[in-house]
Amino acid sequence: MATTRIEKDFLGEKEVASHAYYGIQTLRAVENFPITGVPVHPELVHSLAIVKKAAAQANMDTHLLNAAIGGAIIKAAEEVADGALADQFIVDSIQGGAGTSINMNMNEVLANRALELLGKQKGEYFHCSPNNHVNMSQSTNDAIPTALKLAAYRMTQRLLATMEELFKGFETKREAFDAVIKMGRTHLQDAVPIRLGQEFGAYAKVLSRDIDRIRRSADNLLTVNMGATAVGTGLNALPEYIEKVIIHLAEGFGVPVRKAEDLVDATQNTDAYVELSAALKVCAVNMSKICNDIRMMASGPRAGLAELILPERQPGSSIMPGKVNPVMAEVVNQVAFQVIGNDHTICLACEAGQFELNVMGPVIAFNLLQSLKVLDNGLDVFNRFLIAGLEANNERCQAYVDQSFGIVTALNPHLGYEVAARLVKEALATGGNIKEMIIERGILTAAEVNEILDPVQMTTPGISGERLLQME
Amino acid sequence: MATTRIEKDFLGEKEVASHAYYGIQTLRAVENFPITGVPVHPELVHSLAIVKKAAAQANMDTHLLNAAIGGAIIKAAEEVADGALADQFIVDSIQGGAGTSINMNMNEVLANRALELLGKQKGEYFHCSPNNHVNMSQSTNDAIPTALKLAAYRMTQRLLATMEELFKGFETKREAFDAVIKMGRTHLQDAVPIRLGQEFGAYAKVLSRDIDRIRRSADNLLTVNMGATAVGTGLNALPEYIEKVIIHLAEGFGVPVRKAEDLVDATQNTDAYVELSAALKVCAVNMSKICNDIRMMASGPRAGLAELILPERQPGSSIMPGKVNPVMAEVVNQVAFQVIGNDHTICLACEAGQFELNVMGPVIAFNLLQSLKVLDNGLDVFNRFLIAGLEANNERCQAYVDQSFGIVTALNPHLGYEVAARLVKEALATGGNIKEMIIERGILTAAEVNEILDPVQMTTPGISGERLLQME
Amino acid sequence: MATTRIEKDFLGEKEVASHAYYGIQTLRAVENFPITGVPVHPELVHSLAIVKKAAAQANMDTHLLNAAIGGAIIKAAEEVADGALADQFIVDSIQGGAGTSINMNMNEVLANRALELLGKQKGEYFHCSPNNHVNMSQSTNDAIPTALKLAAYRMTQRLLATMEELFKGFETKREAFDAVIKMGRTHLQDAVPIRLGQEFGAYAKVLSRDIDRIRRSADNLLTVNMGATAVGTGLNALPEYIEKVIIHLAEGFGVPVRKAEDLVDATQNTDAYVELSAALKVCAVNMSKICNDIRMMASGPRAGLAELILPERQPGSSIMPGKVNPVMAEVVNQVAFQVIGNDHTICLACEAGQFELNVMGPVIAFNLLQSLKVLDNGLDVFNRFLIAGLEANNERCQAYVDQSFGIVTALNPHLGYEVAARLVKEALATGGNIKEMIIERGILTAAEVNEILDPVQMTTPGISGERLLQME
Amino acid sequence: MATTRIEKDFLGEKEVASHAYYGIQTLRAVENFPITGVPVHPELVHSLAIVKKAAAQANMDTHLLNAAIGGAIIKAAEEVADGALADQFIVDSIQGGAGTSINMNMNEVLANRALELLGKQKGEYFHCSPNNHVNMSQSTNDAIPTALKLAAYRMTQRLLATMEELFKGFETKREAFDAVIKMGRTHLQDAVPIRLGQEFGAYAKVLSRDIDRIRRSADNLLTVNMGATAVGTGLNALPEYIEKVIIHLAEGFGVPVRKAEDLVDATQNTDAYVELSAALKVCAVNMSKICNDIRMMASGPRAGLAELILPERQPGSSIMPGKVNPVMAEVVNQVAFQVIGNDHTICLACEAGQFELNVMGPVIAFNLLQSLKVLDNGLDVFNRFLIAGLEANNERCQAYVDQSFGIVTALNPHLGYEVAARLVKEALATGGNIKEMIIERGILTAAEVNEILDPVQMTTPGISGERLLQME
Repeated sequence: MATTRIEKDFLGEKEVASHAYYGIQTLRAVENFPITGVPVHPELVHSLAIVKKAAAQANMDTHLLNAAIGGAIIKAAEEVADGALADQFIVDSIQGGAGTSINMNMNEVLANRALELLGKQKGEYFHCSPNNHVNMSQSTNDAIPTALKLAAYRMTQRLLATMEELFKGFETKREAFDAVIKMGRTHLQDAVPIRLGQEFGAYAKVLSRDIDRIRRSADNLLTVNMGATAVGTGLNALPEYIEKVIIHLAEGFGVPVRKAEDLVDATQNTDAYVELSAALKVCAVNMSKICNDIRMMASGPRAGLAELILPERQPGSSIMPGKVNPVMAEVVNQVAFQVIGNDHTICLACEAGQFELNVMGPVIAFNLLQSLKVLDNGLDVFNRFLIAGLEANNERCQAYVDQSFGIVTALNPHLGYEVAARLVKEALATGGNIKEMIIERGILTAAEVNEILDPVQMTTPGISGERLLQME
Repeated sequence: MATTRIEKDFLGEKEVASHAYYGIQTLRAVENFPITGVPVHPELVHSLAIVKKAAAQANMDTHLLNAAIGGAIIKAAEEVADGALADQFIVDSIQGGAGTSINMNMNEVLANRALELLGKQKGEYFHCSPNNHVNMSQSTNDAIPTALKLAAYRMTQRLLATMEELFKGFETKREAFDAVIKMGRTHLQDAVPIRLGQEFGAYAKVLSRDIDRIRRSADNLLTVNMGATAVGTGLNALPEYIEKVIIHLAEGFGVPVRKAEDLVDATQNTDAYVELSAALKVCAVNMSKICNDIRMMASGPRAGLAELILPERQPGSSIMPGKVNPVMAEVVNQVAFQVIGNDHTICLACEAGQFELNVMGPVIAFNLLQSLKVLDNGLDVFNRFLIAGLEANNERCQAYVDQSFGIVTALNPHLGYEVAARLVKEALATGGNIKEMIIERGILTAAEVNEILDPVQMTTPGISGERLLQME
Repeated sequence: MATTRIEKDFLGEKEVASHAYYGIQTLRAVENFPITGVPVHPELVHSLAIVKKAAAQANMDTHLLNAAIGGAIIKAAEEVADGALADQFIVDSIQGGAGTSINMNMNEVLANRALELLGKQKGEYFHCSPNNHVNMSQSTNDAIPTALKLAAYRMTQRLLATMEELFKGFETKREAFDAVIKMGRTHLQDAVPIRLGQEFGAYAKVLSRDIDRIRRSADNLLTVNMGATAVGTGLNALPEYIEKVIIHLAEGFGVPVRKAEDLVDATQNTDAYVELSAALKVCAVNMSKICNDIRMMASGPRAGLAELILPERQPGSSIMPGKVNPVMAEVVNQVAFQVIGNDHTICLACEAGQFELNVMGPVIAFNLLQSLKVLDNGLDVFNRFLIAGLEANNERCQAYVDQSFGIVTALNPHLGYEVAARLVKEALATGGNIKEMIIERGILTAAEVNEILDPVQMTTPGISGERLLQME
Repeated sequence: MATTRIEKDFLGEKEVASHAYYGIQTLRAVENFPITGVPVHPELVHSLAIVKKAAAQANMDTHLLNAAIGGAIIKAAEEVADGALADQFIVDSIQGGAGTSINMNMNEVLANRALELLGKQKGEYFHCSPNNHVNMSQSTNDAIPTALKLAAYRMTQRLLATMEELFKGFETKREAFDAVIKMGRTHLQDAVPIRLGQEFGAYAKVLSRDIDRIRRSADNLLTVNMGATAVGTGLNALPEYIEKVIIHLAEGFGVPVRKAEDLVDATQNTDAYVELSAALKVCAVNMSKICNDIRMMASGPRAGLAELILPERQPGSSIMPGKVNPVMAEVVNQVAFQVIGNDHTICLACEAGQFELNVMGPVIAFNLLQSLKVLDNGLDVFNRFLIAGLEANNERCQAYVDQSFGIVTALNPHLGYEVAARLVKEALATGGNIKEMIIERGILTAAEVNEILDPVQMTTPGISGERLLQME
């Protein structure tokens, strides 16, 4: 039996391995684009298969596609969506041509699998053609953006679930640390007391806004340009097909897919990706800041702040015995930098759109799906391996408050900023204790000082010792 | 009369020019930060004055500030908000210290102006002190972010008004160019026909999403951390004050200012800026793409596409006579690059927040307000000087459609992709006319060809010559 | 036989599959960092194996490591460097811990392979320990940066070879297109004539500077911090070892590796990566611009500039028959965006270094090595599949020159800018021919006009018709 | 006397204020580009004046420009270069048209000032024309890039001088702090001892590489495209002129200006700017890291690391008495973020070059010159106001070393990594002292422990207690 078959396109012909489900155009793409070595993301392959199924269904609805061929295409698409033939999607993530290569890779695989189901030989495209049947009523320019948006949507939902878990993790610590008084810091300098629980409450709060931002941006991904065909005008797509394909997409994906109001707009503009990537970037910025804080609070054990005790996840050094590093926070910092850099690539690619199409889609997909994946994975392990087991070093936190000058801020309403400042300056120079200085000099009584300089009181709005003030 | 006065703080003393309303801390800042040479943005000065007024009002409500001093501070703040003493705000836009320098510059100017109004000498801070009276119940860490958010909010509203005008400009062209048939282009290669009005409709549509995105992001700016004081705990701010100052801010700015639910969060997190800047960046990416398209369509006049005719705004060359360049589009490209770069700076600055505060506020303010300003100015002149006077070169557009092969896409449903591709290949090689080739060879009749290859029909969804297909 | 063995570290113990060469710390890392799904780059694994070999050699030189164990480690390292046991390097590219995980993954694999060679069982670390023997005199903090620098160096050399080929490709076209006169364009507007060969000469020239920049930056990579151990002070590394290990590294890699003058500096600073990545970015910017030009010049075939004819690499559309896109240029644009975005990530990671170490090394490595790879691959196929087969459309180029007004610039010295400008304006309005207008009106004779407006002459320095000028 | 004059260009006419030295094209530009409100950088105005002088000199050399007019232009240019008429340069920094507006602003100002010197009225351009005389043999496309390069070169030299001073500042501290033993930190966790002087030595070292990088990149700026005219072909520029103008430029600027080998290349490519900006960015990344370290080491005074004592430059808080912040380091962080963001804008602008010219020059100039300025200013005050007065907190540094476990790394060669790790783990749990534990348990004698665990010894290469090892 022949080990290869000959396939043709309008540029010539090529030998294709007999067992291969892909065809000539896939081989051309593999030759042209040996760039990253990373094949197209499986989630995008999955989504594209569902898109092809929906298109076949709609084409059967309009009777352009006969039931036998359509049925075979649908069956093939379902198999691929379920993970079959995964090794047949061999084109590189970064490819020229706006995704034509992955679209044709899918068209060829589905056509050949459909031919098999129809009892034909692979390559007998007369009976079921990648272009005429599988790609019927479609263009790369609508099928690929539609598949990308829905792949991104699905991955975003998984990310959001992870973020919700992290939110709960922060909330749990907010409650657990609510009574831990510590020094607040601004400019890395001692400021005024705060509760550790308030800090974790702030982490939870900003994360909740990130969840909202990402959820809102994800919603745009449900608006697709299916039916736009080549440039958004819908050439070669019957109005009935366009209506139906959206319904089938919604069924296939199980989410409320919507047709874009203006298909020309939806085909040339890529702002939905830029917006989502920007939302991921905002989240990355916020998470990086939180990880920085946690790493600083966990610094030590002896020559650092040592306010937090992190779960020990792995030996931290190949040379320093007993050293344990905040690796779960560090990995989130790195994930954040990756997401921010990817956002840059995505912006560059989106700015490079021209006329009716942005041909830089593949690099957008590569970076956007990577960002979704690494942020999801990073926040998941951060929550499970760091936040969940995080403990406070109460004694250390308290000790900092006790020895700090920051508490004198509470004296402002009683003594004025200038007097308080002079006391700090003197205490710093002499190493003296401010409370004692105030009492010794008869500025305030011991009782008054204790009332005013109550750290817990200082962590909620109000003037410490307000009662005294009103008596003055 | 003395030409200088002596002022003191806890670090020492300095001579200040007698006529100056600013004081010692302003002078220290000027010495420390000779960085950009650009003073703090006037809009931020304006907003900060209103913040100071609102604080004084609330402090009077709680009776911490007596009526005489409070009244003088309010009067001074109103004057500054109206533009008075603008030359007294001399600290640099980029300054260390999270804005303490501009806050103290304002506190000093208002204190000295209030002293004047109270019949005192400048520098007699016992009667009205920058820290104890003007800054009462406040910290740089709540006053400055509140002022920045509201300054940004106001500038965003102006930008949105400009964007609405540009939207109308695009819409006007969408209608005006609705009948202009031209070649759609993908990959810069001839694709299928489209109407020029459809392209401008797509520009309008993406801009409308930018308007929504920016409006939504601006709304976050109304949530302020006033009352947070140093670290968000509200130390030294009475609950009644916090409640009242928000009401006075809303009155002072004439917009529905809201207190943040969590003041600790709102003091340490800067995601509202990152989100707004990201929304501006998305808009910049979109506008840059549109300007690129317009510049390409206007390329020529003889050796380019020449589909658009731009208003002539200025001679384009110091050496090439008669040359006119698309300068109004070029300036928007540059504005877009500025906004995107500024976004990068803002992200870096926001990621650098630590613990209870982000001390990089000044560089955030510098870039965010610049982005708002240049985008507003750029889109304004783009609309007035380019879009408003834009004309289509109908003949050229039509000629491209007539000579292009892209129309054969409409033959797919009738002849199949492979046959159509062979015709194109042959026509390209021979220079032949595809319509004629089809008729001569008896593939289709002249009537059928004309029905199928109707460019206008091709610009709306459907299969050209669908009727013929059903007869087959 | 047992299918697992038990391994211990100071955090506890874990079951390891008996056949596995990696050990407990590798397993911890796999559990902690399921981030990208992409294992550490093979080139880095290769380099690290050579680093381990060199360290073992130097440790044998100082007699800290006995000959039997040292010999086994060296043999194991050579095998791994040659590609053996590749599937044992299973830790993720993005990992917390500054590379401790990949360092320990290597230490464990080499220890176990060495044990095998010594006739021991895997896991019998008393005889050959990952930390005490394989990692002897080293820290992650010197072994990993050294390996990364040399991996990057090797990949940079391959990239440079590809760039040299592309340079030759541009030069070949410079010569081939030397006689092709075309319109120069500035602002996308017709400017003055230029030769197509001059344009390709400019492409070659800027590429030659990129080659220089990248070569120069690569040279820094030969300066390594081997011997620095944990923080650059060389603790636990004998001076003789430090001297010898550099010699062995130079032998192992076959390149002139140098010890950093200041090991503390070389351990904490990552500017060598930022510099190299910046050089790659400059190249990416330049190549993207060239690809943009080529895509515009190849636009058409009928509704574009059509000055260049690109090799046809693959069908360009799943819907538009006969369409061929400039996919090889598009893929380079995308590669450029990837490299620029990666540079951003690298900068963020490098800025995040703290004190004696930058712990963000893994994400730096991931992006730097990816940039080197995709740029190499992208420029290679660009040269072979686009530049090599590129042709000029002479007739079209000439036609643009003939119909353009740009040539009137040559009239400036003869008629003055203002007169020339008026002629252009009139010709544009009437569609008239400027040459004819000048002759008809008796401004210049036909002979003079032909002498002055000679396009070829205009493409070299000088005043066209200078002779006439001197006669005036 | 008339308060306005009428000026004309080929687009029409405009009224110009009689006293104005600028003319119609400047006014058009002001109307078209009200973008940033910031006029073109004075250094660029200065450089452009010198360029104009050199061009006039060369035009006189070739006798195209007569002595009277040429002399007047030269005189006018000298005046402007010396700062005269600074208020006449009113076009915005960000302008469409690749710098034609600032070039024409200069041409007009010089023409009118020359006319005055020639005893003519402003606007009598027949006698001395902005285009025909001042701009003779030039185009915006060579005059502006030449001026920008030389402006950037001059500012870079000033920056380099500042960097040299900072280098000395670091070196001074390296020596002053050479005996200060402190804990080295990796991952913010206690590592092994290091000397504070070694850290400052590393800062000096990386800065010295930045100096080299920036100096090397600056050298490229001396290669200019003067003589290229419109597209690099040298049309309308006599070979003798091209030769001479370079000589005059070198004289005018006092630096060895060189003509680009390939003027077409030098006109269309902007890699010299990208390279310089990248070098500035690398420096910014490095300086930001150093400032982060310094801010962390200076954290406190009571609840932070408190290893460094910074000069007190200004009160740090409007609410917290006595608080002093590391403002001089913070401002350098912000400067770094600005430079990095500007680099992004510059890259975007450079990537947007098309064909013979990059029309985004103005935004490149705006950002590049700003980066040079703010980096210069920022490092200058950082050196003078922070580094110069920096002190070490010896006691605190020593205390951290004494109480840390990091020193046990020196036990590895003696006890093995595993035994040492167990000791650390136990000490951490019990709060015990490791030295005592080792002695009490008879693992090593007190003398041996003291020999091995000598912190000073640990800060240089070698095995602590190597002598003991050889006895074992």
